[in-house]
Amino acid sequence: MASTDNCGFSDIESQSSKTLLEYEEILFQESVSEKFKNFTHAAHGMLYALDDRLVFGMFRQRAAILMQLRFDGILGFPGGLVDPGENPMEALNREMEEEINLDLTQHPFTNDNHLVTFLHHKKQLVLHFFTKEVSLDQFKNIELKSLNAKEYGLECFGSIRPPLFTMEDGFKGLPAFLSNQFAGNSREQLLYALKSRNIITSEEIATCVESMKRHVENNR
Amino acid sequence: MASTDNCGFSDIESQSSKTLLEYEEILFQESVSEKFKNFTHAAHGMLYALDDRLVFGMFRQRAAILMQLRFDGILGFPGGLVDPGENPMEALNREMEEEINLDLTQHPFTNDNHLVTFLHHKKQLVLHFFTKEVSLDQFKNIELKSLNAKEYGLECFGSIRPPLFTMEDGFKGLPAFLSNQFAGNSREQLLYALKSRNIITSEEIATCVESMKRHVENNR
Repeated sequence: MASTDNCGFSDIESQSSKTLLEYEEILFQESVSEKFKNFTHAAHGMLYALDDRLVFGMFRQRAAILMQLRFDGILGFPGGLVDPGENPMEALNREMEEEINLDLTQHPFTNDNHLVTFLHHKKQLVLHFFTKEVSLDQFKNIELKSLNAKEYGLECFGSIRPPLFTMEDGFKGLPAFLSNQFAGNSREQLLYALKSRNIITSEEIATCVESMKRHVENNR
Repeated sequence: MASTDNCGFSDIESQSSKTLLEYEEILFQESVSEKFKNFTHAAHGMLYALDDRLVFGMFRQRAAILMQLRFDGILGFPGGLVDPGENPMEALNREMEEEINLDLTQHPFTNDNHLVTFLHHKKQLVLHFFTKEVSLDQFKNIELKSLNAKEYGLECFGSIRPPLFTMEDGFKGLPAFLSNQFAGNSREQLLYALKSRNIITSEEIATCVESMKRHVENNR
């Protein structure tokens, strides 16, 4: 369940905003040990489907990924805090049902879906991140059902798919998407997943992050 | 059809980013005259429903407004370019059908829905903006149907509702939402509509814009 390979957070991180340098990758087993018992734990999940269609006949979309606009006006993955007595996976499944109306009899997250856990020492925060692949048809149904979730329009304000291509100007598409506001380290969770699930190469991710940073610099 | 009252773009504009100072309000009749015939024209629409529910039992949502995540990774209203031979309203209805699968037999935009037109002299760009109120039940159906639009997942990457409240920290909610990336002057179109449709007072809007600007400054 633990992610033991160094599959690239450090290089994403070093190119990203300074606050995110404060997150440290940690083994799952350690993160749920006594040592971090009094930390705040949260669990978030990425549902995705491979999608090889071309956008405008030119840009390969590669995957549909379910993210959302949150009640607080910023982007993130569905999920939330682990309640007392829950383990991270139980919390994730509960939140998935509340937030996106996920049918847990069909698409439950399991231990096998754990991708990575990050630790923020100063904030005493542990962020568990899971990914789960479904078919494109299943994805579309999940997305549609998400608009009937109990919390839709109250805690969830929209279901979105990040564009995963970069357009001719080198900014529109994924780099522009990444320059929006994200909750916690969900931007880095997305990049980590794109890389480790082999959806986008680390070279392409580095180029996107550079483009995003350049744009932010130029608009100061 | 023309918006003749000075209903507040100038004060929103003066508090917003510098690029938006380049947009100038213009009378609709003038904007579609011979003088601007060779300019690029676009038409966008805001569908909304009043929604007095409380979010977390505390924050009045006030209205559900349909915006979207675009293919290029940024936020905007459905709509698009006016094709040769079309008037702005025809273009808007065509785009609404393509992008959000709007049932034009039930919810067509008409001349009465015109709110404001902006001109960008340097870019030779004319932006027509329309708003249309529907019931909350109608809104939910429109939103659901939007996920079955022809262009969903290809040109539209998600249907979202901006949060219209501000949370305890003075930033989460509408100010945080406004700090995301927006297409054209759609952020200003949103603020203009919130004010002129009496959904939020100009004082509250000014406070939100100030909070957004302060946050952007602090994160440089």
